Amino acid sequence: MEEANDNIQFKITDELIEQVEQLIEAQNDKEIESLFKDFHYADIAEILNELNLEDSLYVIKLIDSETTSDILMELDEDIREKVLQNLSAKEIAEEIEELDTDDAADIIAELPLKRQYEVISNIEDEEHKAEIQELLTYDEDSAGGLMAKELVKVYETWTVAGCIRRIRGQAENVTRVHSVYVVDKKNKLIGRLSLKDLITAKSDQKIADIYISNVDYAYVDDDVEDVAKIMAKYDLEAIPVVDKNQTLLGRITIDDIIDVIREEADKDYQLAAGISKDVEADASILQLTRARLPWLALGLLGGVGAFLIMEGFQESFAKYAVLFFFTPLIAAMAGNVGVQSSAIIVQGLANDDVRGSVNSRLIKEMLLAALNGTALAIVLFLFVFLYNGSFLTALAISVSLIAVIVVAGLIGTFVPLFLHKRGIDPAIATGPFITTSNDIFGILIYFLIAKLILGF
Amino acid sequence: MEEANDNIQFKITDELIEQVEQLIEAQNDKEIESLFKDFHYADIAEILNELNLEDSLYVIKLIDSETTSDILMELDEDIREKVLQNLSAKEIAEEIEELDTDDAADIIAELPLKRQYEVISNIEDEEHKAEIQELLTYDEDSAGGLMAKELVKVYETWTVAGCIRRIRGQAENVTRVHSVYVVDKKNKLIGRLSLKDLITAKSDQKIADIYISNVDYAYVDDDVEDVAKIMAKYDLEAIPVVDKNQTLLGRITIDDIIDVIREEADKDYQLAAGISKDVEADASILQLTRARLPWLALGLLGGVGAFLIMEGFQESFAKYAVLFFFTPLIAAMAGNVGVQSSAIIVQGLANDDVRGSVNSRLIKEMLLAALNGTALAIVLFLFVFLYNGSFLTALAISVSLIAVIVVAGLIGTFVPLFLHKRGIDPAIATGPFITTSNDIFGILIYFLIAKLILGF
Repeated sequence: MEEANDNIQFKITDELIEQVEQLIEAQNDKEIESLFKDFHYADIAEILNELNLEDSLYVIKLIDSETTSDILMELDEDIREKVLQNLSAKEIAEEIEELDTDDAADIIAELPLKRQYEVISNIEDEEHKAEIQELLTYDEDSAGGLMAKELVKVYETWTVAGCIRRIRGQAENVTRVHSVYVVDKKNKLIGRLSLKDLITAKSDQKIADIYISNVDYAYVDDDVEDVAKIMAKYDLEAIPVVDKNQTLLGRITIDDIIDVIREEADKDYQLAAGISKDVEADASILQLTRARLPWLALGLLGGVGAFLIMEGFQESFAKYAVLFFFTPLIAAMAGNVGVQSSAIIVQGLANDDVRGSVNSRLIKEMLLAALNGTALAIVLFLFVFLYNGSFLTALAISVSLIAVIVVAGLIGTFVPLFLHKRGIDPAIATGPFITTSNDIFGILIYFLIAKLILGF
Repeated sequence: MEEANDNIQFKITDELIEQVEQLIEAQNDKEIESLFKDFHYADIAEILNELNLEDSLYVIKLIDSETTSDILMELDEDIREKVLQNLSAKEIAEEIEELDTDDAADIIAELPLKRQYEVISNIEDEEHKAEIQELLTYDEDSAGGLMAKELVKVYETWTVAGCIRRIRGQAENVTRVHSVYVVDKKNKLIGRLSLKDLITAKSDQKIADIYISNVDYAYVDDDVEDVAKIMAKYDLEAIPVVDKNQTLLGRITIDDIIDVIREEADKDYQLAAGISKDVEADASILQLTRARLPWLALGLLGGVGAFLIMEGFQESFAKYAVLFFFTPLIAAMAGNVGVQSSAIIVQGLANDDVRGSVNSRLIKEMLLAALNGTALAIVLFLFVFLYNGSFLTALAISVSLIAVIVVAGLIGTFVPLFLHKRGIDPAIATGPFITTSNDIFGILIYFLIAKLILGF
């Protein structure tokens, strides 16, 4: 009996890396080949991500080209960049020949422009070359930028038997066949057929009689995030891509969409945490600084703003020192509420869950904030009153807390809705941006209300 | 020519909802049926989510059962709960008969226990019933809880022709055929075949001669998140599920995995934003309060902690009031840095990106925080010095800032790694949890260092 979880748990270990490094140092090519033969290319890429450049190149040049092209695709982008720099245009072109058009175009797009031309001119298969060149013309965030040219296409006039014969030819170049797309003479998409339908149909039937005309498709310039939503919502595993005349251009498969969904989620998460740019835990200190410092600088600016406000109220300092001791609490609550409400809106917008008018949203958030705020204010009132003994001070602090929470909730709701209406990604409104502005507003409101109640 | 983006943009509008409501009020069944006939079930579910319960039930009872079962699956969970409450056990069982086993089990699992039995006993198809009952025994977060019993299975002893014949029978019950799974006499999974392979093989070949023995699979009690990672990493569109003896039990398809990935991302995002429980923008005020208030209460506690620290230093108040004006800045920076570093670790852990020792992580974060902190401290020093004129005060504040940022970074790095090691979801360490503790630590460190430098 096999050990449980044998196959699902490929875990890269320090021992494995060490073993590989020793084999490379000993130039024990046979051992390396036999070790890597059993690994999936995605696993090999994980190993290469951990090696130094020289060792990675050694392995890549050793392994046969069909696998290395897949490995290249799976490498971390910065590692791939370095590897590609150390390959000749001809070597890259050879890898490209092995890849599907979408992956091929992605890799070429990462190269410097001059090198792009060199690599393309080295691609021998003229059809592959032309297809890649076409894909390079589309925006990378559009359906065209994500699609592959590989697909299985049949004409409505064919019979099932003829179809299966032709598919045998076409399918060789298509890694996975989800659907067979049916086109008319002008290559316009008119329907689809699943392989299952084809297998279960009689062989002398005409495609025109059995195809399903109700086919979902994307336009070549649709935004990939919209395509992702459609595919997730309708549980599609592949979607054909057409131009404005319904001419079939390519298809997008679900594995590429999963990457889009994950990247989008990662990006929103990072923005909420105050990390711009896509960095990973393993990025260099400089990369991490570039991603993190700007948001911290924003926080610094907010802190200076809070300082100026407090300084403006300093004449009341001697008498109401206790007020100043609660400013971190006020700022924290304003920030927390702002992040909560903006996160719910941002997530709702991402899932197309937010309907109804802006006003009704704001009223709901106001009620919610007032409810939460009152509950918290009662607790705070009791604490301050019992600790400090001054009814008025306790009242001033807790009433301000309610006001601050309500305003923070409104800002957190309004800003992302406003940005979204303006066509700006609302996710930037979460995290440090909302925290910082709410800190300042919160402290200002707090002192203004306290001044009103305490009369300083 | 069709209008651009005609099909990809089904957008639910207030006008559409109003139209549906009016048709229901007028009991214009014909119009309703013809309106909904052209809609995808996922779109109909979106519309029903917006109607009141009575109207939703009206539509559901009107539309034919094959579509309503799919609509039920797509409804928001709280709406579905209400709809199911208003259907008899027999009616629910009829819907269940139309669903795949995985969806059927999911819906039944949502019902109260007593009703589960009633519904199950009303299912007429004995095989379907037994399969659903089997699925209900698995943990919902395990591969078993996600898999469906529907799959296409062939024995190694069959020929290609025989295989295609049998697949015609089996495939009727399987919505989408990704792979054909090859088993031995004892139903042990030994390999797979794609439909493409089957179509391109000669009809008298034996399955034993053409199947691919290298097949990825999941064990029935594997965690769904691990299964999701494997499927995303290896670009699998379906994965067979086996028990410890390799007996083929079911399969998981990629559309279910997409939901797992999205839910996981949503959950982490909400935790980072201080929202516990899975709530949507459209949830009730009470639900939203339950999800948000606990985190705010934590923030309040932290604020009180900060208050107590500041109060402890109040004798230095008269002389160094300016110190107190910078506490919101210190707290904000500590919180921001903590969230940044914890978010990177949490995301890295989620993507299996975090390797190497805890110590090397901490050293890296310390260097990074020191670098960021110094840059920010220089700016702050210049501001305080120029504004306030006191060299020592400016020095105290900016040196403390560096210390606070370094400590915040270390806490933000250490806590999620620690939780992860203990088997606790590190995502809870992001958001309010880290902000609050860093607020307190930050302000404490700030005053201690300031005291040391200024000597009060």
